[in-house]
Amino acid sequence: MDRERLKRIVVDVIREMEDAPFITTGVSNRHIHLSRADMDALYGPAYQLTPVKELQPGQYASKETVAVSGPKGKFSSVRILGPVRGLTQFELSLSDTFALGVPCPVNESGNLSGAGRVRIENPASGAAIERDCAIVAMRHVHLRPETAGKYGLKDKQLVSLEYSTKGRRLVFADVLLRVSEKFVDEIHLDTDEANAGAIKNGDLGLIIAGDRV
Amino acid sequence: MDRERLKRIVVDVIREMEDAPFITTGVSNRHIHLSRADMDALYGPAYQLTPVKELQPGQYASKETVAVSGPKGKFSSVRILGPVRGLTQFELSLSDTFALGVPCPVNESGNLSGAGRVRIENPASGAAIERDCAIVAMRHVHLRPETAGKYGLKDKQLVSLEYSTKGRRLVFADVLLRVSEKFVDEIHLDTDEANAGAIKNGDLGLIIAGDRV
Repeated sequence: MDRERLKRIVVDVIREMEDAPFITTGVSNRHIHLSRADMDALYGPAYQLTPVKELQPGQYASKETVAVSGPKGKFSSVRILGPVRGLTQFELSLSDTFALGVPCPVNESGNLSGAGRVRIENPASGAAIERDCAIVAMRHVHLRPETAGKYGLKDKQLVSLEYSTKGRRLVFADVLLRVSEKFVDEIHLDTDEANAGAIKNGDLGLIIAGDRV
Repeated sequence: MDRERLKRIVVDVIREMEDAPFITTGVSNRHIHLSRADMDALYGPAYQLTPVKELQPGQYASKETVAVSGPKGKFSSVRILGPVRGLTQFELSLSDTFALGVPCPVNESGNLSGAGRVRIENPASGAAIERDCAIVAMRHVHLRPETAGKYGLKDKQLVSLEYSTKGRRLVFADVLLRVSEKFVDEIHLDTDEANAGAIKNGDLGLIIAGDRV
């Protein structure tokens, strides 16, 4: 049995023992979603990404990466997540915004209001575009309806999330909860948030409803 | 009147109005303290740093920088803080440890137990040393005795810190409080912690004693 499978079983056991909403955490490193038109501009008409790892149902990391740059810096290898989306969106951490020299808003995914301008390049061909597409994705929780129902939680509720890592215990407040049949149960944090709490991908966060903080 | 001075006055006014322990935050980027022997090895015998900015009473940022590297990466310009100390200590964020490929413990400053090994280089001369000196400095609060007394806080007490940035509100728990005549009132966070809460240098954190979280 591999380590990841064993970890998942341990997680399930803990949840059952505690009967509290401990939810697994997905930590997002910087990544990009491309529109069909921008994919064509960078890789040629009707180019198809090569999936290498499923992330969530229907969403995958692709083999392909792009270089993304701003006035102060460059990330030479940013993973493209597929499939293509309606709009190109580059998700980065606040630390990353300082490294690039591109001020970006903290927005819900899909909201490009005020998004930062970056240069996106296919490193193999040199094809490049500039887009106002860079946002810091706001932390959020995805729950399946049966999980939400079990713990009395509702779609669009604001909750707190507690992480109890030794020496870095913290509580994120005002975290948006979304409930849908399409989701898997998962907390979505970025690398700044994860590292502030010494939280690793797959670690459990505890949902606290009500006004504890 | 310059912006920093004005900001400090506004901070003081807010504190007095609220009569609650709002404390200003100092956000530490990666930096290094050098021992006398390591300074000599890198810069030559009895070399004296050139102070450019006072940070706390008796502590300053120097003009000089070093390059610090590990198996996976390199920071080409790490600020040396003076004066020299008993032991060389490189303080970095958890994000930085991944960039360098150097696992490091989260320790109180001064505790080099389990510290990561890095290469430290004087970029001008090429002189270099390797030291087990890299730690992620544990967040903490410094208070003067009169501030601690006013709010009923004690040396070595664990407190929580609340930051109310819109959309990124959070609470750091189990934060060590230190009280001394030698300190200025200040919360010390690193860049991961600051960015997780969209906290900027000089922002106010609220000390919460007791067991709110």
